[in-house]
Amino acid sequence: MSTNGNKACRLISRTADAAYGDPGATRIVRVGDVAVGGTRPVIIAGPCAVESREQTMEIARAVREAGCDMLRGGAYKPRTSPYDFQGLGEEGLKILSEAKARTGLPIVTEVIDTRQVALVAAYADVLQIGSRNMQNFPLLTEVGRTGKPVLLKRGITATLTEWLCAAEYIAKEGNLNIILCERGVRTAMSGQYDRFTLDLNVIGAVKEQTFLPIVVDPSHSSGARNRVPNAAKAGIVCGAHGLMIEVIGEHTDPSTILCDGAQGIRPSMLRRILSDLR
Amino acid sequence: MSTNGNKACRLISRTADAAYGDPGATRIVRVGDVAVGGTRPVIIAGPCAVESREQTMEIARAVREAGCDMLRGGAYKPRTSPYDFQGLGEEGLKILSEAKARTGLPIVTEVIDTRQVALVAAYADVLQIGSRNMQNFPLLTEVGRTGKPVLLKRGITATLTEWLCAAEYIAKEGNLNIILCERGVRTAMSGQYDRFTLDLNVIGAVKEQTFLPIVVDPSHSSGARNRVPNAAKAGIVCGAHGLMIEVIGEHTDPSTILCDGAQGIRPSMLRRILSDLR
Amino acid sequence: MSTNGNKACRLISRTADAAYGDPGATRIVRVGDVAVGGTRPVIIAGPCAVESREQTMEIARAVREAGCDMLRGGAYKPRTSPYDFQGLGEEGLKILSEAKARTGLPIVTEVIDTRQVALVAAYADVLQIGSRNMQNFPLLTEVGRTGKPVLLKRGITATLTEWLCAAEYIAKEGNLNIILCERGVRTAMSGQYDRFTLDLNVIGAVKEQTFLPIVVDPSHSSGARNRVPNAAKAGIVCGAHGLMIEVIGEHTDPSTILCDGAQGIRPSMLRRILSDLR
Amino acid sequence: MSTNGNKACRLISRTADAAYGDPGATRIVRVGDVAVGGTRPVIIAGPCAVESREQTMEIARAVREAGCDMLRGGAYKPRTSPYDFQGLGEEGLKILSEAKARTGLPIVTEVIDTRQVALVAAYADVLQIGSRNMQNFPLLTEVGRTGKPVLLKRGITATLTEWLCAAEYIAKEGNLNIILCERGVRTAMSGQYDRFTLDLNVIGAVKEQTFLPIVVDPSHSSGARNRVPNAAKAGIVCGAHGLMIEVIGEHTDPSTILCDGAQGIRPSMLRRILSDLR
Repeated sequence: MSTNGNKACRLISRTADAAYGDPGATRIVRVGDVAVGGTRPVIIAGPCAVESREQTMEIARAVREAGCDMLRGGAYKPRTSPYDFQGLGEEGLKILSEAKARTGLPIVTEVIDTRQVALVAAYADVLQIGSRNMQNFPLLTEVGRTGKPVLLKRGITATLTEWLCAAEYIAKEGNLNIILCERGVRTAMSGQYDRFTLDLNVIGAVKEQTFLPIVVDPSHSSGARNRVPNAAKAGIVCGAHGLMIEVIGEHTDPSTILCDGAQGIRPSMLRRILSDLR
Repeated sequence: MSTNGNKACRLISRTADAAYGDPGATRIVRVGDVAVGGTRPVIIAGPCAVESREQTMEIARAVREAGCDMLRGGAYKPRTSPYDFQGLGEEGLKILSEAKARTGLPIVTEVIDTRQVALVAAYADVLQIGSRNMQNFPLLTEVGRTGKPVLLKRGITATLTEWLCAAEYIAKEGNLNIILCERGVRTAMSGQYDRFTLDLNVIGAVKEQTFLPIVVDPSHSSGARNRVPNAAKAGIVCGAHGLMIEVIGEHTDPSTILCDGAQGIRPSMLRRILSDLR
Repeated sequence: MSTNGNKACRLISRTADAAYGDPGATRIVRVGDVAVGGTRPVIIAGPCAVESREQTMEIARAVREAGCDMLRGGAYKPRTSPYDFQGLGEEGLKILSEAKARTGLPIVTEVIDTRQVALVAAYADVLQIGSRNMQNFPLLTEVGRTGKPVLLKRGITATLTEWLCAAEYIAKEGNLNIILCERGVRTAMSGQYDRFTLDLNVIGAVKEQTFLPIVVDPSHSSGARNRVPNAAKAGIVCGAHGLMIEVIGEHTDPSTILCDGAQGIRPSMLRRILSDLR
Repeated sequence: MSTNGNKACRLISRTADAAYGDPGATRIVRVGDVAVGGTRPVIIAGPCAVESREQTMEIARAVREAGCDMLRGGAYKPRTSPYDFQGLGEEGLKILSEAKARTGLPIVTEVIDTRQVALVAAYADVLQIGSRNMQNFPLLTEVGRTGKPVLLKRGITATLTEWLCAAEYIAKEGNLNIILCERGVRTAMSGQYDRFTLDLNVIGAVKEQTFLPIVVDPSHSSGARNRVPNAAKAGIVCGAHGLMIEVIGEHTDPSTILCDGAQGIRPSMLRRILSDLR
């Protein structure tokens, strides 16, 4: 990052805090008992969208049994088409809340509207900012003000400086509980054999610039579930502090899934990934 | 666009209305006396950001004298860094309102927060959605509900389907007063000699899919004012219904400008562009 | 371009020759009676590939009657698949030679192999280096040694420095008769509604760095003949010294064409483009 | 790949040979005693360019002691600028030959000119085709005719179909001894914190289409040696059959290196990578 970038990202820069001067030092973001940023990779898994109580409970149980650390699931879904399933809204948040009560897993869920931040924050343990909203600055400010952990996905072709500056908008509100998430970028290669190009070189670059932890989402870039395990393991090999993975039911017909059915892995595959990692 | 894309964009598709079946037919978007989408190119010009009353009045006068049709200017600026000038807010809207009263030019200004849509709509003639917010779906819904003309910029690497679907979010609220705006895309070439690669092939593709008018912003992609005139004229040659151009004062020192000073052209250059076009 | 770039391109740099210090000054490349680099745009047109004597003569006549300056046509075709038509080879060169004799039009044809440079140079007035060979350095050296005019297409995602350094390889052999040709770059946008993204901003950047003339190929990026006229005119508006356009027979069924049938325009469209330009 | 792609790559397609119908089956390419394509990753390492006898012998010894399988090193270097070091030519080949005699390591070296194929083939065990020449079809044909193993690097933004079709040009000459090599692609992200974006998703896609082995070059994309180890390990995790890594002397000052000094790793780092892998 240029000097300008460093100045623009002063609060999250390694130069901001002597405790994090060493490139290997990471600020731990605590979510309940889970520590994001330590040496043990944190696994966040769950459905793309909360579609029903039954679907969510089944997957939540499977995610816990596989040994994952947090449950993901979207109640408010930003969808390319206005005619696609937009999520169950508050009903979805209540389902996630019940899944948390039953499994003990903290909840990661996306918020897409400043006016819903308080509502989502009442249910969520981690507020997710999706790629499309990485530069929705009012939304970044609002999630910053909650003080809650925020998972900030990289924009679809965001530069490193743009991404870190987006994190700085959150930090500026006094909230350093930020987890960065690389999820693939759009390139001239995307769309041939995957949806996005997973950019693993960025992990090392992020660590040079900031003390914030970074996780990798191997699901959105893959576009096909059989590509997820290798991408997941490569993310950890490249230094990610964790993974965020989409999961479907063990016996669910992918064609019946309302959102991104092709890339969700089954619990049996999830267990193999965790077994390979640990 | 695929069949799926066509279905996703049913209200703005050429197939939606027999009156617009012909590829050359454009739905006119009326802004006061100005008709966007006719054979005469519409020129929108003004400062990147409203920085002061004096600056805005000087440029507004120059824009009117050059023969432009609308005044642009940002009161709420989405900036990469939280420490950069974020706009004058409502004070900026009042300055634009005064400029409109003095020059008769309708006002185009950006809105970046759902909670400010009503306020901005009270001052603006056209609500601008910037590239960063092209997929801020709650914001698209809110500007759709105002019924006011909306200028929808293309996202930084938005596909054609994503862009048209964003317009469909606005149309779904009963608002077909949508002006599309191509402003350059980020590519592996960007940043060497420009900021973005202006994608003029998209104009013809847009016209095949939708009856909505499209304008070109030659300023943001150029990164240097001496590149703006050619890009502006090329946009019109490729079939754009108008231009949106950033302007600085005739004698202003670009280094004193708070936002994008390198790409704003001076009124004398603006007059030459309009003279070449007409 | 960086200082490094400037040093790397010393012979073709504006700083190399006081006569070309002014950004508007262009070194004229003479091809027979045709002057490339002057104020009048030079139009090179013809078939993608020489497929037969009849096809070539018909198109050559049409190209001359439309008022074009040179005839293009490939005898050696670099094709993605080894099973696609690879060109007629020397027979194709002879057909081009006959077309030249009948129409008086100089010939532009591609060379793809160092071992064929002498043969191709015996027939061609301008040796074309295609995008795939922009960094085939032995080939650049060989065409440089012929002293003949060279049309150097930009590589599919070549940076400006890489492109100018490729020209420098030719210049280093004592041959400054170089015509640059922008033909579109591969980006994340390519392939939706065109084949490549035409990068017109590069024209101004080229002119700042070098005194060599530059032409635009509006055919390869378009992927569809109805996009060619606007792209052609936009190229000239942005300062190109000429165009290179692919042409098919007025009544030819595009599906019978062996190479790139979808993008070749018919002579009637070619005449309209030239009429609009002049 | 499209049906068209499959037809275009018939000889190297999984459908070409019943023995390779299973996605996990790889055709072993034998180089002396080394088997490329088996379960044990093959490590190719050595200097970017052969600069001197001493430098090459020192690195060759270190490469052998680290347990690598082959020695790489360029005698003919394709360089962006004509004024950069272009390699030692045949003298470089002789140095490589001596290094082979002393270490027993087979030699991988690049050929860039059809007229030098026989010469290079007389010294090399594997003929390397670099990214810039991936679509230099006469060169592909010539290396195909030698029958020698060929390492075919992916072009800088080559699609999967283009890359496989390039391999098909070699195969068409009766030579199936082809090793594919992913080395990073140019994207809008490249150049910020690396030189190219390493595209690891392509490995799985290659394996679905063809039975040819694939290796990863983690050096050229990284742009900095401290990024090489993670990229190398990620390549293997994603299923690559081997690695090709650039090495500099343990105590060499990178600023004295004539080619790509910033990305070459030292033998001590090479040993750690191999130790982590095995």
